[in-house]
Formats: sequence, C-alpha cells, structure tokens
Amino acid sequence: MTGFVSFVSSGPGDPELLTLKAVNRLGRADAVLFDDLSSGPILSHARAGADLVGVGKRAGRPSPRQDHVSRLLVEYAQLDQRVVRLKSGDSGIFGRLEEEITALKAAGIGYEIIPGVPSACAAAAAAGIPLTRRLTARRVQFVTGHDVSGQLPEDMNLSALADPTASTVLFMAKRTFPKLLAMLSDAGLPGDTSAILAEAISTPEQTIQRHTVTSLSEALEKGLSDKPALILYGPLAET
Amino acid sequence: MTGFVSFVSSGPGDPELLTLKAVNRLGRADAVLFDDLSSGPILSHARAGADLVGVGKRAGRPSPRQDHVSRLLVEYAQLDQRVVRLKSGDSGIFGRLEEEITALKAAGIGYEIIPGVPSACAAAAAAGIPLTRRLTARRVQFVTGHDVSGQLPEDMNLSALADPTASTVLFMAKRTFPKLLAMLSDAGLPGDTSAILAEAISTPEQTIQRHTVTSLSEALEKGLSDKPALILYGPLAET
Repeated sequence: MTGFVSFVSSGPGDPELLTLKAVNRLGRADAVLFDDLSSGPILSHARAGADLVGVGKRAGRPSPRQDHVSRLLVEYAQLDQRVVRLKSGDSGIFGRLEEEITALKAAGIGYEIIPGVPSACAAAAAAGIPLTRRLTARRVQFVTGHDVSGQLPEDMNLSALADPTASTVLFMAKRTFPKLLAMLSDAGLPGDTSAILAEAISTPEQTIQRHTVTSLSEALEKGLSDKPALILYGPLAET
Repeated sequence: MTGFVSFVSSGPGDPELLTLKAVNRLGRADAVLFDDLSSGPILSHARAGADLVGVGKRAGRPSPRQDHVSRLLVEYAQLDQRVVRLKSGDSGIFGRLEEEITALKAAGIGYEIIPGVPSACAAAAAAGIPLTRRLTARRVQFVTGHDVSGQLPEDMNLSALADPTASTVLFMAKRTFPKLLAMLSDAGLPGDTSAILAEAISTPEQTIQRHTVTSLSEALEKGLSDKPALILYGPLAET
C-alpha cells in the first residue's frame, strides 16, 4: 500500500473558481503541496490537520528547484499519504506537470489529474469576450513567452503566432513581448491588432488594460508591475 | 430594472467539474437555458421552481437556430429574470458566445461570463498527460474541425496545425479529420505523430483511444460513433 497523488487544478485564483472535485480532494488530503498562486483562501478547503507545504517562489527567496518539488511529492506519497499537488490555472497548461508525473512513475506511485479553469479562459471572461469567434477566430492558442532560462524561446512558430485570425494568449511574456512583437511584425502581424494585458486575474488586484499590440509593447517597455500577467491578442474586440 | 444573464460554463460533463461559482449561479437563477451537454445531473443545482429550457439538439430533431436561442435569452432577461445560459466546457471556446453577447448588447441587457473547465483540458487529464511540455510542447492550440456548414474550414493555418512541437486539440472534427490529415501530411506533419481520440469525456461513457494520426484517420474512415469527441495530436506520449 502506497500513497496516491491528486494533481488538482486550482483555477486562476478566485476560490469560487475551484471545481467541486478540487474541493473534495482538498478536504480528503493528508498533505497539500501548493504554489503561490494556489494559496490563500483556496487552502481553507483543506481539512484541519493536513500538512500544507508551500513550494512556490517567496518574496526575496528563489523558487525551489523543480527536482526538489518532485522529490518532496514522492516522499509524501511514500508515507502512504493522500497527497494533493495544487497547481494554478489548469495543471496541464504550463504547470511543469510532466516532470512531476515522470518522478511519480519512476517511483511506482499512482496519480490522477483533476482539470481546472485555465487562467486564459478566466482572463477572456473577465474582459467580457469569447476566445473563439465563429467567423474570425476558429483557432485559439496558448504559448509561453519564456523558456527555462527566462528568455524568449528560440523555436517559436512565427507563422502560427502572427496569424491575425487566431486568438493568442501569451503566458509569462511581459518582459519578452517587445522583442516577440518585432518578430511578429516582420512575420505580418498588423500593428493595430487588438491586445489585452490581464493582470492578477480573478483576484482583488485584477486589472484589464485594452491596447493594440503596438501600444502594449510601448507600455511594457516603460515599466512592468510584478503581478502575474497574461497577454491576449487577436480578434478580441468587444462584440 | 431589467434582468441579467450569467453565461455559466458547465465543464466537460461530469457534474463535479462545475465550479463553485457555477453552482452558485445555478442556485440563484430564475431561468436556465441549457445545451444537451450541460444537462442531466448538472441541472440538479438549479433551484426548485426555476424554468429549465433545453435549447440543444434533440434526437431526431434539428438544433434550434442560433438566432432563436439569442432571442429566447433576451426575452427571458426582459422579464426581469436572473437568467443562466449554461454552455458546456468553457463557454468562451467554440460555444457561439459571440452571437449571444451581441444580442444582449443590442437589447441593453447586462451579462457576466463564468469561465469553466474546457473539455480539451479534461480530455488530457483523463488520458493522464499534460497539454504542454517544457521542451517539446510550448504551444497548445484548440481548433474547430468544421465551419458553419459542417465542412472543413477553408482558411485553416496549415503551418500552425502541422507543427509537431505543438499540442493540438480538434473540436467537432471526427468527420473531417481524414481530409485534414491529408493536408497536414502535405504540410509536413509526420504520420507517426501521437494522437488520442477522446469521446464523451468525463461521462460514464468516456473512452480514450491511443493512435498515431495515420491509424486514427483509418479508424475514423471505417466508422464513427455518435458520441461527442475531441481529437488530440502532437507530443502526447505518456511520460
């Protein structure tokens, strides 16, 4: 008999955007390993007495190494515990889920994945717009704006990303967006394409700024907040 | 004083994948307009006495016209009702949300959008895999496999869709996949790219079939079930 790990998607931040299944798994867990964006009121659904273990970045302290998080996850499960690994948004989207699954499989530990509300969907909802449109946006794509070293990935598919008939959501891209936009403009993306900067989505600090891709790039070059942010661009006009 | 419409995402089908906010809105609604995939146990969260109005396809009967659904939505709201418009998956993804928002705005009716769990995320979770991977899938895209007339859309971005380093989820594409795959192969997608056919996701009838894109196309040409399905392809191997 060994433990079991539930990867639980905690949604974009608003505790009301947890699923019923996520609440159920939190209430039954012996240990909860959580990231910064999955903390606060979300953890109130954990049962009294559960171990609550923060594994995210803390102010002024570096992020724990991914292999440390994976090892911790395996160690808790090997204590025959029901472990919840909370991940913000949908855990399968830019959540480093692959590395943790690999570690569990190597240790012979069972797991399940509870899907959740992606922050990209919450951002569009907060802006009052659909991500897809019947005639003008039959494709939506989510892309990361930085690689392991924090730089713009080198192998971005510019044809896919410069397509003005897709809705695009960039994750973790505030710093790299001006450089990316120069490449997208060369690849044909019109400078007046609608853009939205969505910060701290579904939290009390939420802000939604409407831009063109050009004006957004200029605004980001002038200064950045340290709030987590998504950048949306494409056919995003209010209907 | 006029009514108000909450577009509520009901998730992929499993009632436990409703968000707490969706349950709250259902419990307060005077009227609930629902699609086929948002019915059954999900509707048990509506309060006793609420009007429950099915607006989806019924066996042997054609789907109500979209303009009829929009008109019904406006009419309920104009009766000063709190209206919930339930849409499966995330309402902003292939949910025809744009048309209904346009109708509400034309009538001066306020609305909110409650995001939800996209069926694409639930399909990947059910298959036990992440949609993005740190090195091999830094882009994920959702695409519709048919246009208004049920045909493969003419303006698909083949460069984006033939990219073997993205995870792609095709919605409503069972009939058109063989034709699309021929185009993707010409555009460079390897025939041995991993594919998953995910049907009736998160319901008791759920099935997950693992294929290559080639074997999936062959299987679909031999016969189709009438279950709702998603097709996933790209770097989807089990870790």
